Amino acid sequence: MTERAETADGIVYLVGAGPGDPELLTVKAKRLLEEGDIILHDKLSGPDILDRIDPDRLEDVGTRGHGDTTPQSYVNERMVELAREGKTVVRLKGGDPTVFGRGGEEMRYLADHGVPFEVVPAITSAIAGPEVAGIPVTDRNHASTFSVVTGHEDPNKEESAVDWEALAATGGTIVVLMGVTRLPEYTDRLIDAGLAPTTPVAMVERATWPAQQVVTGTLETIVEAADEADIEPPAVTIIGDVAGTRETALEFLATNYE
Amino acid sequence: MTERAETADGIVYLVGAGPGDPELLTVKAKRLLEEGDIILHDKLSGPDILDRIDPDRLEDVGTRGHGDTTPQSYVNERMVELAREGKTVVRLKGGDPTVFGRGGEEMRYLADHGVPFEVVPAITSAIAGPEVAGIPVTDRNHASTFSVVTGHEDPNKEESAVDWEALAATGGTIVVLMGVTRLPEYTDRLIDAGLAPTTPVAMVERATWPAQQVVTGTLETIVEAADEADIEPPAVTIIGDVAGTRETALEFLATNYE
Repeated sequence: MTERAETADGIVYLVGAGPGDPELLTVKAKRLLEEGDIILHDKLSGPDILDRIDPDRLEDVGTRGHGDTTPQSYVNERMVELAREGKTVVRLKGGDPTVFGRGGEEMRYLADHGVPFEVVPAITSAIAGPEVAGIPVTDRNHASTFSVVTGHEDPNKEESAVDWEALAATGGTIVVLMGVTRLPEYTDRLIDAGLAPTTPVAMVERATWPAQQVVTGTLETIVEAADEADIEPPAVTIIGDVAGTRETALEFLATNYE
Repeated sequence: MTERAETADGIVYLVGAGPGDPELLTVKAKRLLEEGDIILHDKLSGPDILDRIDPDRLEDVGTRGHGDTTPQSYVNERMVELAREGKTVVRLKGGDPTVFGRGGEEMRYLADHGVPFEVVPAITSAIAGPEVAGIPVTDRNHASTFSVVTGHEDPNKEESAVDWEALAATGGTIVVLMGVTRLPEYTDRLIDAGLAPTTPVAMVERATWPAQQVVTGTLETIVEAADEADIEPPAVTIIGDVAGTRETALEFLATNYE
């Protein structure tokens, strides 16, 4: 905060890469990826997007679910350092920059350090994952609410901070991002909270990537179905009646993804 | 369903226009708007987007909140009719096509009538509205869940179908789309449900449009603040601690919108 007087000449764009299909980048994100001096990216930005960028301008600051991770403090400091050198910095984040992406923390850090920044919204796989698989997250008949949670929580927290009981009580669609590992845990908790074991569930792995894979079931059967289909992260889980509509849509659904 | 045998030669793309800024269209949406034989659009697609399309290919099938509306059945039938003529039809919807946009109904109608279709995800103003105003919908410290609801409900329903008590209990951010008219009603209900009257609230009118306007307050003060600022639809309401972060971000937030 003491550094506030030292205002940067550069700028940081917090840009979402969307779910992975390069055609689902926004026009603005595509332009900034072409114009930016340096692209600080993570692993979830999608190989097809990163492959199109001059490698000299790419810097991997990715954090991973397990194993070696880049501390958030390094990413924060690197953005400020580059902006103070006068660079146009693109901080590229998988999905939307403020949906469980620490975009909020990065915004605050930049503001506290006097660095001009702009947030460039993107498509989140929480909505795009279901819809490219034929599942609308809302439906006038089935769901007047949808809630998005993360299944990948701070490993230092013993208890899940997500109130699954309250989510079940909303009666709306529940979308879980990063919810592969804890699938058995939260499906059980939702049944305990009163959702019918027959509630439809779908999982979309690598939504909009060429290797997209979809598996469907119910709260009772999805753990086994996901295991059989060998569903791996990144995947999005959709829980609620809307997940049962995929079969209707499937016959006439034209898609590049599966 | 009896018409299923008569498969169409054309195709329907259910395309989201995003929140309104033409640069926030996806690369794919932009391409389809250039290539499509006919663009069936509504009022929320944003004037700056529609202005760039050859008027001969535009057909307004918009529904409005009040006054004259095009029945959904007309839109459904028109899509099928055009696809059966072999046309490449772009059904352009404001925001994302499956977030309270009847995209789900349109998908089912197309599938039931043997019309190939594809859903092209887009940015929803439920997330982009807050973030261009400096507000992340999630935050590691403040919100591990966000829920999206519509404030504009079926006028034939006497009771609100939204369970505000359950939403309050999630402890996460609540985002209300189309929530200008019923703002006094749901802010009261959330206070009755146990949220602190001092809970931060922000409203973003015409997010990402040149005329974007933002107003902030609390559950207790936002009705008066919105009234003084003359907030009109379309607007998105953000309720929760994250809405209080705008002031921190504002000084260094670079944006085209306000």
